[in-house]
Parts: sequence; structure tokens; C-alpha cells
Amino acid sequence: MKYNSIDEANKAVIEKIIGSAPFLVDVVPAKSKIKELTEGKVLLHAGPPIKWEDMTGPMQGSCIGASLFEGWASNEADAEKMLANGEVTFIPCHHVNAVGPMGGITSANMPVVVVENRSEGNEAYCTMNEGIGKVLRFGAYSEEVITRLAWMKNVLGPTIAKALKLSEDGLNLNVMIAKAITMGDEFHQRNIAASLIFLKEISPYIVQVEMDEKDRKDVIKFLADTDQFFLNIMMATGKAVLDGARKIEEGTVVTAMTRNGKDFGIRISGMGDQWFTAPVNTPQGLFFTGYSQEDANSDIGDSAITEAFGVGGMAMIAAPGVTRFVGAGGFQDALSTSNEMMEICIDQNSNFTIPTWDFQGACLGIDARKVVETGIEPVINTGIAHKQAGIGQVGAGTVRAPRECFEKALEAYAQKLGLI
Amino acid sequence: MKYNSIDEANKAVIEKIIGSAPFLVDVVPAKSKIKELTEGKVLLHAGPPIKWEDMTGPMQGSCIGASLFEGWASNEADAEKMLANGEVTFIPCHHVNAVGPMGGITSANMPVVVVENRSEGNEAYCTMNEGIGKVLRFGAYSEEVITRLAWMKNVLGPTIAKALKLSEDGLNLNVMIAKAITMGDEFHQRNIAASLIFLKEISPYIVQVEMDEKDRKDVIKFLADTDQFFLNIMMATGKAVLDGARKIEEGTVVTAMTRNGKDFGIRISGMGDQWFTAPVNTPQGLFFTGYSQEDANSDIGDSAITEAFGVGGMAMIAAPGVTRFVGAGGFQDALSTSNEMMEICIDQNSNFTIPTWDFQGACLGIDARKVVETGIEPVINTGIAHKQAGIGQVGAGTVRAPRECFEKALEAYAQKLGLI
Repeated sequence: MKYNSIDEANKAVIEKIIGSAPFLVDVVPAKSKIKELTEGKVLLHAGPPIKWEDMTGPMQGSCIGASLFEGWASNEADAEKMLANGEVTFIPCHHVNAVGPMGGITSANMPVVVVENRSEGNEAYCTMNEGIGKVLRFGAYSEEVITRLAWMKNVLGPTIAKALKLSEDGLNLNVMIAKAITMGDEFHQRNIAASLIFLKEISPYIVQVEMDEKDRKDVIKFLADTDQFFLNIMMATGKAVLDGARKIEEGTVVTAMTRNGKDFGIRISGMGDQWFTAPVNTPQGLFFTGYSQEDANSDIGDSAITEAFGVGGMAMIAAPGVTRFVGAGGFQDALSTSNEMMEICIDQNSNFTIPTWDFQGACLGIDARKVVETGIEPVINTGIAHKQAGIGQVGAGTVRAPRECFEKALEAYAQKLGLI
Repeated sequence: MKYNSIDEANKAVIEKIIGSAPFLVDVVPAKSKIKELTEGKVLLHAGPPIKWEDMTGPMQGSCIGASLFEGWASNEADAEKMLANGEVTFIPCHHVNAVGPMGGITSANMPVVVVENRSEGNEAYCTMNEGIGKVLRFGAYSEEVITRLAWMKNVLGPTIAKALKLSEDGLNLNVMIAKAITMGDEFHQRNIAASLIFLKEISPYIVQVEMDEKDRKDVIKFLADTDQFFLNIMMATGKAVLDGARKIEEGTVVTAMTRNGKDFGIRISGMGDQWFTAPVNTPQGLFFTGYSQEDANSDIGDSAITEAFGVGGMAMIAAPGVTRFVGAGGFQDALSTSNEMMEICIDQNSNFTIPTWDFQGACLGIDARKVVETGIEPVINTGIAHKQAGIGQVGAGTVRAPRECFEKALEAYAQKLGLI
């Protein structure tokens, strides 16, 4: 390899992360950026590759919802039959510069945010956050869900796109993240500050867009009320930054972590697009009234890109408020978690200093070698879906990335380097 | 007294604080709520009573600015002559249900926020935050300052008033404060989260107000950019809540702390409207480029009502980010400060739990007895004005309330109770 050591290669990777310049530049129909979505009936999904029959309930539910949204079927039974018949092609979001929360199901006409990483010239995409309650990403597909998706396609997406055009340069995401991390967000289960900062940045443009006044009010109200709106922007940011850093093509830095409900998959910088997988764990956490641990689906979603980026569970100390939502104890537990996570990271990200961590930078660069050496598995803050299709979110909690993925990745990289 | 002990009286006072129900209900010209402002040339000022000749530079500068704003004079020299001639009556804000930041200068036609404390049926008022840079409250009075004040009177104030009317009930301030305290605000030198939460609450109504589109854009942009906008709302909230609690008229709970640049004044629950004063200290802190400690004006402003309410410097641990702005060290220093402040408080406010303090409630009820016994003086986070009129803010820092005020208050209360 062109580096003198794995440490040197890893340093090059993390320098690309620190030097990244992600901007939110547009919202477009997914098909306008991802040409694979125009080739017949295609759905993107979270995690490493998976077949319909291996998908867990919430991902199947999301597929049914997307089929109804796209007009491929007019009812649940027809949609399910079509999906089971093999009429739909499934592609991981990660294979087409995208990420998707929970089921991650993304279809041609869903609007996606476009994050441009100007330091590397690459882009990443993610659907927009639907809010809470009955939502597609958690496997719900009732009329309420489909109606909201249609509104997002027809009103919300185009409005934000027009507003972003008025901003000329787009929105500087590093600056927004740097502010929000001082305001108690960890960007996976808590994005309340970042979502407000997004509202602050976008609302002066939204009031200038020529549009129906009722629609304008609905858009402002939706953004004001959707505390997790920034999550999907953060996911696209993590994807854009880590895909830029992946260009180094050497080293043991984790460049993606994701789950499809069956398998947990990781990528490391030295092994390009290859997935290293192991069976997923099931999150432990707190449940909404009427639900319990036995309703919990196994771990699912591309949103663990946030932890690969050094935030989410890794940045628990930035967001002590989130511990009461994911059942992770109190302030001292949040501190212990981030301190533990630093044991498997290479450095700290000076772009994102955390006041509650005495102004230390966020975790930067999970080193697969350190995960294997220490046995410390990355912690992920996650939403918990009901294991049956059609129900939706039932709680939130934490889950660990299985060490086996990291062992497999190291073994493959050692072989590539001719070390074993 | 009608209580069995001072402790019992104090408990009654803090129960009124916890049980308070402050709502932001309106924005009106000051004269429409404060009839004293309609009786000739009258200016409200911060702190206990003070004469023109004893005012420090920034307060005199604010008086000149207010005179220009009201059209009482057309230039600085005429305004100063008029003020020095005794043509203007000065009244403390606190004497007319109001509070004002820094100089606290409030004139008849300035818009004030109206906070209604529904548990006690009383109201409090405060001017609106002008943003940063050249602003009246820090003693600047250039054309830029007066132009902005006119815009606030003609556009900003009426717009927010109309938006609040659309909200029907007004905005529930306890809920907004409870959210923002989990997001790194201490509400004196850091209101960035609370200001965004205000934007989130008000913007869906602002888009519904019938108004000029350019004005609407300007209002949204001003609110989006003014990180300290919530400070003045918080001050009116503290005033409304503590004035409600003062109705107990017994006990040693501090119900106001304020400074006029010359004297620091406090009130305690058992002594009603009486001020107990001592010479103010001068804040120590960090200075903007080109300024230093020797430019600092002595301590000034009604904004220490936030500390009397248990936030501001008392809640330093809620806002570790602010320590880098006021020069108060790092996370551990913030923790030490709040822990020290708890030694002079009676209880913790369960309405406002602080995640970074392991979910303990904010300080509640400074007990003048504890201040005297321990020698621990309340700490105040404060802006620092240039000591000359016309310049404005030069930094931010911390300052202590002089113990002498508390000693005098206790002595007077002991006399009232016939104890000495």
C-alpha cells in the first residue's frame, strides 16, 4: 500500500473526515439522482443486501407502503403478493450513495435531501423525516402514512428545494452540527436542537418562496413540530463525509455501520465496498405505553451511519437528555459511555467540541483493530420498531454492533495486505 | 406573622414559584401598560432608584438614545442638556412591574413583551432584545440604534403581537424554559436554544399574519439571527413569577436582584418593596477584540432577575457552553459553580430539570440567611458595557452580588419581626 503503516493510512482517512465540507444543497425526487430507481420496480432498503423473504416485519411493512405510494398496488394484499412474487428489485441504499432510516425503504418518487461534500465532490441522499407516530420507516402503511408521503412529495420537498436555491450556497452542515452538539443533541435519537437550527436557517427563505399560503403554513408548522427532522440530514451528511473518506482505500477505519434487521454490516476503509456481516442484536430500551421488549424488532436501519461518523451513541455525553429516552441511565452513564467509546476510536473531531465533555471533540474514526483488541463493541442509540409489519415505533434504546463483523473485516484486510 | 417559622414562610414563597404559570401573551407600547410613562417625560431605568448625575456612562447613553427615539431632542447635545436639567423623571423599572436589561431604559413608545403569571393574575413587562453590536441597552445611541428601535416599534412588535393573538392562549413559558434548559441555556448569557424554541412556536403564526411580505421576511430573519431574543422574555418571566411569590410578604427568599451601575439592590420576600443596597462590583470576564478590563463599566441591569429566579449564573451547569463566553472555565467549573450556589438555596425547581446536573432541578429560592451564614454571594453571568456612553457592549463575564445587601435585608426583617 502507499502508506507506511496502517496508522498512517488511518490518519489519512480521518483527515478527510475532519476536512470534509458537507452542505445541504437540494431536495429532489430520488429517481432524479439514483438512476437505478428508474429501471422498473425498484426499492432501496437499509443495511447490507437482503431478500424479501428474509426481511423482518417493519421492512416488509415499509415495502408495502412504498408500493402503495408508488401506485404499484392499490391494497395491502396485492402489494404483498407483488413483493413476494419477485416483481420488485431490492438494492441497499448504501450501494447508490444513499442511506435510509429503519427499513430504509426508498422509492423513485420519494423526495430525498441532497448533501454535497465539497471537499471531495461527492453527494449522498436520504429520504426526509416523516415525524413520529404512524410512519413508513417503522413499517406502518395506513392511509395516514401514504397521505403524508404524498404531501412530502408535492409540498414539503419542493418548498425546501426552492428555499435552498434562495440560499445560494446551500446550508453549511458542519456549522449547524457544531452548534447543535453544544445544545444537547447526539444526532441519532436526539436532534431537537439541530432541527430548530435547520428551521432558523431555512425559514427566512421559506417566507420568500412564491407559494400557496396554506401550504407555507403547513410546511413551517411541520418543520417546527418535527424534532427528529435533522436526523435524515445528519444521516446523509455522515454518508457523504464517510464516502469521501473511503477514497483512501486503505486502513482499518470503520466507514459504514448498518443493519437490515437480519444482518449487521460494516465497511472498513481498506476494503472498499465489501460488507462484513454478523447477525444483528435486538435493542434494549424503554417502550411506549402498551408495548414491551417482546414486541421489539431486531436492530434495523442505516442510521448507524451516525455512530460511524462519531456521534449518536458514541456522543452520548453530548446529549445527557437522551439517556432518559433510550434508557441509558443518567449523566455519569452518558459520560462513561463516551469515555468507553473513545477507547475504540483513533482521534477526536475538533469540528464538533462537546461542552459537557469539557470541550473535547466528538469521537472520530472507529478503528476495527481496537474493537477486536478491546472487545468493546460500538454502541448505537436507536429507535425500536414493532416486529410486525404495519404497527410502527414502539420504543427507543441502545444496541451494540457485533464484534464478529470487525473480526471478519480485519481478517479480510490482513489477507489483502498479504499478512495472513 | 401568620407562619410558624421563617422556614415555613420561605416554603410558601417557593411553592408559589414552582406553581407559577407564566405565559407570553402580548407585545404592546410600554405606555399602554405603564401609565406612569404617559405623565410627562418619563424614563424607566434598571436597578434601585438613581439620579441622572449618578448614572454611569452606558445608562446615560441609553437615556440620550431614548430621548432621540421619543423625539424629545434632535441631537445628543440637546438630549444631554434636557436630561441634566431635570426635565425627565426617572423611575426604576421594578417599581412599575417591569424589568430592563443593562441600562434598562424604557420609554413610552418602546414595545414591551407582556408576561402574564396565571397562577397569581399578575403581569410583568420588558423591552424586546435588539440583537448585538450597537444597541441601546449597552449605551449606544447612533442612528443605527434609533432606526432599529423605530423598526421594532413599527414592525417587530406589532407582528409578534398579532402572531400571539393567533395562538389564542399565548405561549407557555414554563414548557419552553424546561425544554431549553436541556439544550445548554442558562437564560442570562446563553438563550440560543430558547430563542430557537420561541422561533419554532411563533413562526407558524407569523406566516399567517396579514402583512407586508418584506416585513415578514425581516421579522423572521431578525428572530432567526437574534440568539439572545429570549433573554428579555425570560426577564419578564422571572419578574412575573417572583412578583407573584412576593405576595407571601414573609420570609427571607430573595425576590429581586438588580443593579443600576452604582448600587446593587435586593428585595426579600419578608420586606415587600424595600431595597437593600450596597455598592456594585465590576464584572470580570472576556473582552471583545480591542477592549479590556479597564473599559468595563460596573455591574448594571435588571437582568439579574434571572439569577433570583434560579437560572443565569446559578444554572451554570445547564450551560457549560457559556463558560467559554463569560470566562468561567470548563465543565468542572460550571459544575462547581452550581453546586456552590445550591448551598445558598432552599430547594430545587422540579419544573426545570438539568440533564448535565444528573437531572437535578435548577436552584430555587436564594435564602438571604444562607448567603450571610456561608459568605457565598450569588454569582451573576452578565454582559459588560463600556463605561463611556455611546460605545456599547465590550465583553461578558461574571460578578457577585455584594453580601452587604443580604445583611441589611436580614437586619431589617429581624427588626420587623421584633427579633432585634
